[in-house]
Amino acid sequence: MVSNDRVPQSEFRYARRVQFAETDLAGVVHFSWYFRYLEEAEHAMWREAGLSIAPAGRELGFPRVSASIDFHAPLCFEDVFEVHVRVDAISKRSIRYAHTITRGETRIATGSMTAVCVERLPDMRAVDIPDTILAKLLKP
Amino acid sequence: MVSNDRVPQSEFRYARRVQFAETDLAGVVHFSWYFRYLEEAEHAMWREAGLSIAPAGRELGFPRVSASIDFHAPLCFEDVFEVHVRVDAISKRSIRYAHTITRGETRIATGSMTAVCVERLPDMRAVDIPDTILAKLLKP
Amino acid sequence: MVSNDRVPQSEFRYARRVQFAETDLAGVVHFSWYFRYLEEAEHAMWREAGLSIAPAGRELGFPRVSASIDFHAPLCFEDVFEVHVRVDAISKRSIRYAHTITRGETRIATGSMTAVCVERLPDMRAVDIPDTILAKLLKP
Amino acid sequence: MVSNDRVPQSEFRYARRVQFAETDLAGVVHFSWYFRYLEEAEHAMWREAGLSIAPAGRELGFPRVSASIDFHAPLCFEDVFEVHVRVDAISKRSIRYAHTITRGETRIATGSMTAVCVERLPDMRAVDIPDTILAKLLKP
Repeated sequence: MVSNDRVPQSEFRYARRVQFAETDLAGVVHFSWYFRYLEEAEHAMWREAGLSIAPAGRELGFPRVSASIDFHAPLCFEDVFEVHVRVDAISKRSIRYAHTITRGETRIATGSMTAVCVERLPDMRAVDIPDTILAKLLKP
Repeated sequence: MVSNDRVPQSEFRYARRVQFAETDLAGVVHFSWYFRYLEEAEHAMWREAGLSIAPAGRELGFPRVSASIDFHAPLCFEDVFEVHVRVDAISKRSIRYAHTITRGETRIATGSMTAVCVERLPDMRAVDIPDTILAKLLKP
Repeated sequence: MVSNDRVPQSEFRYARRVQFAETDLAGVVHFSWYFRYLEEAEHAMWREAGLSIAPAGRELGFPRVSASIDFHAPLCFEDVFEVHVRVDAISKRSIRYAHTITRGETRIATGSMTAVCVERLPDMRAVDIPDTILAKLLKP
Repeated sequence: MVSNDRVPQSEFRYARRVQFAETDLAGVVHFSWYFRYLEEAEHAMWREAGLSIAPAGRELGFPRVSASIDFHAPLCFEDVFEVHVRVDAISKRSIRYAHTITRGETRIATGSMTAVCVERLPDMRAVDIPDTILAKLLKP
């Protein structure tokens, strides 16, 4: 579904600390939080490019069509970690991101998520990603 | 801010089980989740009255202006508990709820939350609660 | 990593309603919540089998080593949906689950998650899944 | 329950940006998140004082016995805001914090939370806050 018809350049490193509410009774970060960490990194990459994933008043959205993570080592309370996110592939209507979470030299997790550009109302119809977005997101 | 100019009748009992993601590293439910439990009970009370707090397409909302909980005993993973919610006071534009969380005979928490009726766009201006809502919510 | 050396029988259907706090500004359920829905269904399947994923005092845990979802259609506030979960593959130390989320006739999402059996302390070392657990979880 | 028998000095300013998963279908931050913001600020204040609220291996915990917030204005996606937290009162076994959330010149919310010092196992018995913690947290 996602082709490689452009060569994306964008990548971003996002630093974050584990918060208390993100841990579970096993004493480590609950796995569902990693998906939020990946998303936070993506949105920070958009901001770095001068963009917002959801600017006030705009009727485009970027819902996910797939998300996956492989977990290699746990994160604990107050750990400082880094999410490296890059645009892995892009097509007219979708973007695939690849992510690596690390804590120092330790590889914590690797992820992949694909989002598609849609008109939010009334029915989330897929549309082309605006060129103005691509130009900023895929800066050489 | 909330007066007692009507005598509300509504109350509701909402049963719930603690899920894994709601616990934290201390081995008990994170305190922030209790506020969601209270809200779930309120929305279930609205459904029981034939209402939705956020029906598709309606431009009214009920944001909270205050929320408080006293915590008496912890909840643990897979505990089954009950939220008793009742309309504690009501005015033209706001509703105050009172809540008690229990697990069997054990009192877990007591809460209070006040929501105000607003037009969602553009500026969350307070408006009167529609009579059609009051009639259903405060059934004798 | 997960082999098919046993033929698992277990499956479970878990019904759930979307709560307000699970939605985001796009008006639909945030994608991270689907992973929690899958987990809730798994843990309910364990309870149905007379088991708990985290009984008080036990030092075994089942952290995830991978999780993935494909999203087909959005869920909205107050939607009632069903998670069908089944044990898809099992090895000495790991369990792979396959999930389908549906709302009525609409396919919402399909997922897969693999958990590994570990001793929780001190270092999350992988160990064999106890036979007592397998016997209950994979009942014919 | 909390007396003013010491005059606490500690306060802290914690900056934060609203993340996408923290919003709800009303387009603003869900009220339950504000409690997590307050907690994040408290834990950051502890770190600033050279402490951790939950160091690995320690059997003391600080569960909340009460939490309350008044909400004055909404927060939106990507808003940058600040939590000002200070120790408002302290007794032998408990700490009360007072919080103000602001976005620029706009007052967003004011909160109060009280935590009690307990031994985590087996029964969360209240104990005196260690002097080593007080000395760091209440530095003149």
